[in-house]
Amino acid sequence: ALAMKGRRVALFDADIYGSSIPLLLGLQGKRIYADEKGNILPVEGPLNIRVIAINLMLDTPDTPVIWRGTLASRAIIELLARVEWGNGDYLIIDTPPGTGDIQLTLIQSIQPITGIILVTVPNILNETIVAKAANLAAKTGVRLLGVIENMSYFKCPHCNRVTNIMGEQTSERLAAKYGTIVLGRLPLDPGVNEAIERGEPFILSNSNSDAAKNILEITDKIISLVENNN
Amino acid sequence: ALAMKGRRVALFDADIYGSSIPLLLGLQGKRIYADEKGNILPVEGPLNIRVIAINLMLDTPDTPVIWRGTLASRAIIELLARVEWGNGDYLIIDTPPGTGDIQLTLIQSIQPITGIILVTVPNILNETIVAKAANLAAKTGVRLLGVIENMSYFKCPHCNRVTNIMGEQTSERLAAKYGTIVLGRLPLDPGVNEAIERGEPFILSNSNSDAAKNILEITDKIISLVENNN
Repeated sequence: ALAMKGRRVALFDADIYGSSIPLLLGLQGKRIYADEKGNILPVEGPLNIRVIAINLMLDTPDTPVIWRGTLASRAIIELLARVEWGNGDYLIIDTPPGTGDIQLTLIQSIQPITGIILVTVPNILNETIVAKAANLAAKTGVRLLGVIENMSYFKCPHCNRVTNIMGEQTSERLAAKYGTIVLGRLPLDPGVNEAIERGEPFILSNSNSDAAKNILEITDKIISLVENNN
Repeated sequence: ALAMKGRRVALFDADIYGSSIPLLLGLQGKRIYADEKGNILPVEGPLNIRVIAINLMLDTPDTPVIWRGTLASRAIIELLARVEWGNGDYLIIDTPPGTGDIQLTLIQSIQPITGIILVTVPNILNETIVAKAANLAAKTGVRLLGVIENMSYFKCPHCNRVTNIMGEQTSERLAAKYGTIVLGRLPLDPGVNEAIERGEPFILSNSNSDAAKNILEITDKIISLVENNN
């Protein structure tokens, strides 16, 4: 959504084993290639975001990436060094859950990191897992920009009543514990999957949905935190 | 649920970075300890399942496990060798998503493996990720017992109407592609999180729910596949 606010954005999908960004951004069938100097060129889709993702380099998206962590780390460093990102305002890195090789490598290789955004699901199960990442951020001195609560609630399309399917109210507790804020909440929305099936970014085809509006509100908060420091 | 069908069950939570089994099985506050010979003794909870999980060994559950994959693999091999499992009918290993160090180490260290069960969410995003694991199973010659469709549907508690929030019908496609079957479907149910918050296993406190009934049906199919080969 940063791209829709006029920022030039690049996105690195660091989830080697579960790369999902290409499907979410409508990049099905696109492929990354290298120029004559060996620089790797990102793929650009309907949102004008320049994307690097492992699934854009595989023969088929269901090819398993059977790499041990040391190889995965080397692959990420190599990629980051060789990608011709061009000029941009933001480089966003989407990491897999956890505090393993990929997260460690990224924190150690990229300096300075402006901030970390934690994405959680509002229950004690996910809170515990995301808290590990918050602790890692604290240990390494990287700023926590905030928490986004995903799968926050569901509004039934038949009766319009809201159910907190996954749980509730753990995001405030998590944010407070680590001295940060809740940036916003994203509901469960069947439209997300429908947009993926059509190969369109959800935020373009469902711009009137609560989910899309909340995404844009969260974006404004992130821009304000990063660019104005408040 | 195998334990509720009279089988003696042990469970190894191999998700080093996102250990969630202790909360799901009502083991909050329990700790693994070693006997005088240095053997590691599993923890047993309300379902009489003997459990080994990294979160049962940490000072607090939100301590980040900042291990590179090679260390995580060594930790898993060491644990598997030193645990005093006792007699049992089933050893179930819950792995994190993906095809990285932990999955490779397990497939290479444990022989023979009776079978792999794939847990998916019914949309193209998850189908692609789970297909990678199915391909890994095929490459290594391990039998696929079947596919469990999680977050399959949601029945609104206010109007009883069903919504396929996450998508639909990708499990049959996935199962057919890899020559296996769909073992069953588990709905989204707010009761799961409520049970976790109370520290109780969902299947005991919500035994009349669709989710619990489906879990027991899936268990019957798994028992039949493993013990009668049909």
